[in-house]
This record gives sequence, structure tokens and C-alpha cells, in this order.
Amino acid sequence: MAERVIVKEVAPRDGLQAQPVHLSLEQRQRLIESLAKTGVPELEIGSFVSPKAVPQMAGTEQLASQLPAQPLIYSALVPNMKGFELARDAGIKTQAIAISATEQMNQNNIRKSLTETFAMAADIVKRAASDSVDIHVYLAVAFECPYEGRVALRTILAQAAELMTLNPARLVIADTIGAADPAAVKEMMSELVAAYGAERLACHFHDTRALGIANVYAALEAGIRQFDSSAGGLGGCPFAPGAKGNVATEDIASLCQQMGLDTGIDMAALLESIALLSEFIGAPQGGRSHYWLVKNWQKIFASSH
Amino acid sequence: MAERVIVKEVAPRDGLQAQPVHLSLEQRQRLIESLAKTGVPELEIGSFVSPKAVPQMAGTEQLASQLPAQPLIYSALVPNMKGFELARDAGIKTQAIAISATEQMNQNNIRKSLTETFAMAADIVKRAASDSVDIHVYLAVAFECPYEGRVALRTILAQAAELMTLNPARLVIADTIGAADPAAVKEMMSELVAAYGAERLACHFHDTRALGIANVYAALEAGIRQFDSSAGGLGGCPFAPGAKGNVATEDIASLCQQMGLDTGIDMAALLESIALLSEFIGAPQGGRSHYWLVKNWQKIFASSH
Repeated sequence: MAERVIVKEVAPRDGLQAQPVHLSLEQRQRLIESLAKTGVPELEIGSFVSPKAVPQMAGTEQLASQLPAQPLIYSALVPNMKGFELARDAGIKTQAIAISATEQMNQNNIRKSLTETFAMAADIVKRAASDSVDIHVYLAVAFECPYEGRVALRTILAQAAELMTLNPARLVIADTIGAADPAAVKEMMSELVAAYGAERLACHFHDTRALGIANVYAALEAGIRQFDSSAGGLGGCPFAPGAKGNVATEDIASLCQQMGLDTGIDMAALLESIALLSEFIGAPQGGRSHYWLVKNWQKIFASSH
Repeated sequence: MAERVIVKEVAPRDGLQAQPVHLSLEQRQRLIESLAKTGVPELEIGSFVSPKAVPQMAGTEQLASQLPAQPLIYSALVPNMKGFELARDAGIKTQAIAISATEQMNQNNIRKSLTETFAMAADIVKRAASDSVDIHVYLAVAFECPYEGRVALRTILAQAAELMTLNPARLVIADTIGAADPAAVKEMMSELVAAYGAERLACHFHDTRALGIANVYAALEAGIRQFDSSAGGLGGCPFAPGAKGNVATEDIASLCQQMGLDTGIDMAALLESIALLSEFIGAPQGGRSHYWLVKNWQKIFASSH
């Protein structure tokens, strides 16, 4: 049996939330139904944020009420305790909260100080424990902040130590702006794996500088086996060829497949989801390996169709 | 001082040789002049092959007679002893010869058996030694052959051992069709570095499956510090977006820069070369990181212009 790599598909959340094209609830539902058939074990369906702030995510509670029956872990992002309660009441048993590693990113993003943000995270993780909800804590801008520049490794290690005392279901190291390089990833993730083991750690990379897959490989080398990714590398600007968002699910699946690691992803189904995304967005979507995969996926993946 | 990584720029040879658009000698000359200013320490100007077989490379001897005065190592690919002599007589003091790791690739490519090809390589390396020419021996399809499939690691290790007894200036492990994955790269290159040291080893990757930069990183991890690459990721099909050729010089330069390794590449000059290539080919060229670099290169590279 090949060793398992867990992929959390985040296209319906991180992929869609920054799109100038706003998908209808029906389109988002169809996307979720399509992605639920790709074999990914986890699927983030949206976020419980103010529809004024992020109109792309309006109505996520309705999507939560009509989830496909596949045996997936469905998750959602929540910004605060109110969001946690809304998601919990909508039946979402795995939730993501994001806190930024720098003062300025927290201030600019959610108008809270670093101290206030960590306190909020602690409150939510505690409440979640009593409500039987798993929390994935995202440590955002963990390599570089758009306002404060490079983030020191020791800062992240100290923040991770503080967050791990909360005993979250998962700590996700997030390279929010896509500025990590594989040497930095390997160093950081090796330190974290040595301290906490790999089971509750994950990585979330963006492919802005085209180092997304090299960073995934570096994290795999450090022992990490859980990754976020987005079908088609959704994100970035859909009208700028080559401007990439999240690291693409098909790129991670291809990398793992060729390395003898098992993501459980059905590539034919995933390519169908990407085609659907392209239709909804109105522009071709696809990760770095997409062009090759469309014609050649059977060379590395078993044909299931 | 940052540790040095040697890049051999191969766009004028491996990049151009497969293009449906045939550049004129004057265009090839302008490309060489442009690339000679990018700071790369090595530049492959073309190949001394039959113009009937590869019309894109016709007239390389003329280019060899008018090389820019920059202190670069100019090299050329030669297919056999006759090519070696032509290149030597044209003043090319560093030459590349390519032999394939599999019987069928040699048969299909140059109508010679594996044994005959290795014998030819031995003859050329010996002659080169007495003529004061450095030979870079390329071991092609070192990970996968389009005719025979995956190549066993032990096959490459045995062939490398045989080739190293010839004492070539460099042994280049070439993933000719872009089928390597980083785990395989790290394993193979670690074995080779342990056996021969890194100084005379190099890697040549293609980005077909979008793993080019992950493979470069894996080779760096194994201790390799010499790489071939092509400005703009030239190669593949220029009319198919995303179909990539050689790993792009700008991608390697960006990876190294962010990892604190020094390629000596002037990114502004390299982007000018890529723009020139796009003009000559008649289609936008650019590696995986090109889109980001065009707008943001000063964020990671010092501005020299």
C-alpha cells in the first residue's frame, strides 16, 4: 500500500473568494458536487463571513444544508466566534480559523492586534472542544507578510508552540502570498514535525512565484502528509495567464502519484471539475501540469472511466 | 558570499532546435549576444549537426566565429566525431555529446546500439583530451525512455560509472522527456554525488509535467550545483500554452535567489532576452515564474538597470 497524502480541496472557498466572477449558489453547489466525486478526503465548501465583506461566499449556510452524501470531511472557514456558531449550527463539524503571524496583517485584515487574534483563536478552539467541532488553525503569512516582510522562523516556532497548547485538530502553516521557498519550508516544517509530529500539521501554499510544487515536495521531505490545494490552481487573477492562486490539486496529485504516494484522487473526475470551473469562471483554469495532464493523465494515473 | 550555482543557458541550442519557427542566423546571433549579457557563466550556442536533420541549427560554425567578447564558456552540442572535429576547428573548447541510457532510444535517435554509442563517447572524450577540449557527456532519458519506460536507477549508476572512467569534464544527467520526479532525482543524484562528488555532475531537466523546479530543488538538496536551463522555458510547442520545454532559466534563478544561492544572473537582462525570444518566435515565451517576475522581479533581485 502506498503511503497516504491527505488533500483538502479548497477551491470552493479560497479559490472562489477572490474571484471577480461571482458564482451563483447553484454553481457553487454543482462545483461542490463535482469535487466531492474526485476522491479528495476533505472539501472546504465556503466561509461564514459577512456577505458585505465577501459577497462571493454569501449563502454558505445553504450549501451546508445540502452537502453531497459522499463520506467526506466538509469544512468551512470562520472569521470569529459568531462565524463559528453559525457554521456549527449549520452542521459543519470541521472549521478553519485563520490568524496572521504579524501584527500588521492582523490589523489590516481583521482590525485586531496579534494578541487579540490569538486570544480569539483560543476561545474558539476551547468552545469547539465542548461542541465536538474540530478546528484547523491556520497560521497565515507564515513565511512573508505583505506589510512586514520576511517572518523570522523563531517567530513561527514560538507562535506554533502557543497554538499547539490549545490542542487544535490541525495546525496549518500557510504561505498566504506565495513567498516561501523550499529551503525555508523544509527547515520550518522539519522543526515543527520534530516538535509535534506530522499528524496534526499541514501546509497551505500559493503558487504566486511558481515554487508551489517545490514547496510541497520540501514539506513532504520534512514529513508533512496533509496539504490544502485548489482544483485548477484557482485563485490569482482569472484574466492574467500565469497568475496563480493556490497550489493546484492536480499538481499535488501528479507529484504524489509519481513519487509513489497515494492521494486517492481520481484524475479523470478532477479534470471534469476543472472543466466545470473554467465554464463557471468564463476563462480556462488549470494548474501548472494541467496542459500535460489533459492529454496524458492515463500515463501516470489508472483510468477509472 | 552566497554559494554559487552554475547555469548553462541552452536556449540557442536545446530551446531552438525543436521550434517550428526557424530563426535566421542573424536572429540567433542577436539572441546569443543578448544572453551573453545576462550573467550566465555558460552558453550553448548551437549544435554541429547535419542541417538536413536539424535545419534550425544550420550555420552554427558561423556563430562560433563571431562570439561576443564576454568571459563566458561557449559550448556546442556535437553528435559524433565529425561534429567534434567541426566544432573544435571552429574554436569551441567545450562540447556536449549526448548518449541515451536505453538501447531503443539510441537506435531510434542515432541508429546506433547502446554499446556503439558508449564506444563513440569514449573515442570523443579521449580525442578531446589530446585536443584540449572539455567534454560534457549527457546521459539522456536517465529517468524514463519514451520507448522503454522507466529506467532503473542501477542502470544509470552502472552507466555513470562506465562514463566516469573516461574522466569527462562533466557528466550531465538528463531527464530528456521531463518524466523525473523529485524523489527519484534526489535518490539518483545523492548516489552519484556520494560516488564522484558534485563538481563534475550536472542536471538537465525538462518541465513537461511541471516538476522541473521541484526536480532542481531535489538535485540542489543532493548537492548538485550545475544545471542546464533555457531562457523563457523555451522548447515544447510554442503554440500550446503551458507546454513547456527546458526548465526555465528565470525559474532556476528565482528559486536560487530565494534560497540564498547565487547564479550571478541579471534578471532585468534575462527578461530582455526572453522578450527578444518572444519577438523571434512570434509567441509569448516565459517560464512558470515569468508572469510574476515581469512585474515583481525587483522584490527578490537587486535592480541593476
